[in-house]
Amino acid sequence: MYKLILVRHGESVWNKENRFTGWTDVDLSERGEQEARRAGELIKKHDLFFDVAYSSVLKRAIRTQHILAEVADRVWVPEVHHWRLNERHYGALQGLNKAETAKKYGEEQVHIWRRSFDVTPPLLEPDDSRCAVFEDKYRDVDPAVLPLGESLALTITRVLPFWQDYIAPSLLSGKTVLVTAHGNSLRALIKYLDDISDEEIVKLEIPTGIPQLYELDEQLHPLSRKYLE
Amino acid sequence: MYKLILVRHGESVWNKENRFTGWTDVDLSERGEQEARRAGELIKKHDLFFDVAYSSVLKRAIRTQHILAEVADRVWVPEVHHWRLNERHYGALQGLNKAETAKKYGEEQVHIWRRSFDVTPPLLEPDDSRCAVFEDKYRDVDPAVLPLGESLALTITRVLPFWQDYIAPSLLSGKTVLVTAHGNSLRALIKYLDDISDEEIVKLEIPTGIPQLYELDEQLHPLSRKYLE
Repeated sequence: MYKLILVRHGESVWNKENRFTGWTDVDLSERGEQEARRAGELIKKHDLFFDVAYSSVLKRAIRTQHILAEVADRVWVPEVHHWRLNERHYGALQGLNKAETAKKYGEEQVHIWRRSFDVTPPLLEPDDSRCAVFEDKYRDVDPAVLPLGESLALTITRVLPFWQDYIAPSLLSGKTVLVTAHGNSLRALIKYLDDISDEEIVKLEIPTGIPQLYELDEQLHPLSRKYLE
Repeated sequence: MYKLILVRHGESVWNKENRFTGWTDVDLSERGEQEARRAGELIKKHDLFFDVAYSSVLKRAIRTQHILAEVADRVWVPEVHHWRLNERHYGALQGLNKAETAKKYGEEQVHIWRRSFDVTPPLLEPDDSRCAVFEDKYRDVDPAVLPLGESLALTITRVLPFWQDYIAPSLLSGKTVLVTAHGNSLRALIKYLDDISDEEIVKLEIPTGIPQLYELDEQLHPLSRKYLE
């Protein structure tokens, strides 16, 4: 039986400020750090000795993973930080306040951008300084695959190769895998694992900082799932 | 011109208690955390955009690296934690107070254990609970290479393959490399890079938390070295 632990990063300073974040690399808030510690305590309490730790390249996920690994006494575990686990890219909305955006474009439009499966937000212009192509951390990534804005559907498409190329092989080799990521990159994994419909996945809310444990059979089909408590 | 940054971890709780540490996995002291932050500030100040971060599997080194990477805003950089960068293994002395050990065995004997090039400390018995073979973090390492106690000479022998297999290839591919490690594993690298004699290397003192920058030519011969300030 294989074990997979999914953790959504703790609260960030922009969650707090109610701004669209996406690939913007904002740090954890103090509450977010506390949530990360709590996640580590839960993982320790349940003796989940994870063997490899995957995260996005965004600091709110990496720092959540570092803090929880300290608490669980497993900072030595191999870590991989990969852009495919990043949050959904929110395009030209990144950095905007959600309430102000609702005033400008209407509640209805913002609801569609936030909660539809395959509607893409307004894209960044390629010369916008917010584009990932200008960031050092994406230097080794083919610029053609760096998004200017993503729907949830597009997010899922770019997350799944990470499941296939990293997570699944680690599980099949007997490793207990920790994935520390974001609301929408975790939705991608959960949709795939639990075969959730397009309509249902947009409604799935994943709490921050609460580790979710999947137990999987040899075909990597889920036998059980639960939030640790 | 290639760039290599060496950092010795900040003060640990056992440095403070004056105990032989070696492979014992003790955490940073508060002062050690401060030293790590200072290291990050110096790296940031000098625009040393490291592309890969190598450390031992010991938490005082990994946490130093995590803290300095936060300060330098490079937590996304790929990290490798490897046992070959561990501190010299102090054998049966691990955990003992240095002053008490001097009383028991004599100042002279302790000086020989601490400062000779090729004298090995008293070895751990293979069934001693302090042996690395009983630790989860060495599970994937051939038990035959896990030491029961090392001289500086033996430490150098096991560190150098990490230079050859990881650090040198990264430098040659153009990456700026950060190595966060320990007094003796860093002595191993510095002895090799600067061709220091056996007699001289035991006297070399490396300050904690002060990044040392090497600039190297295409043959990986040092062109310059300096502590950042």
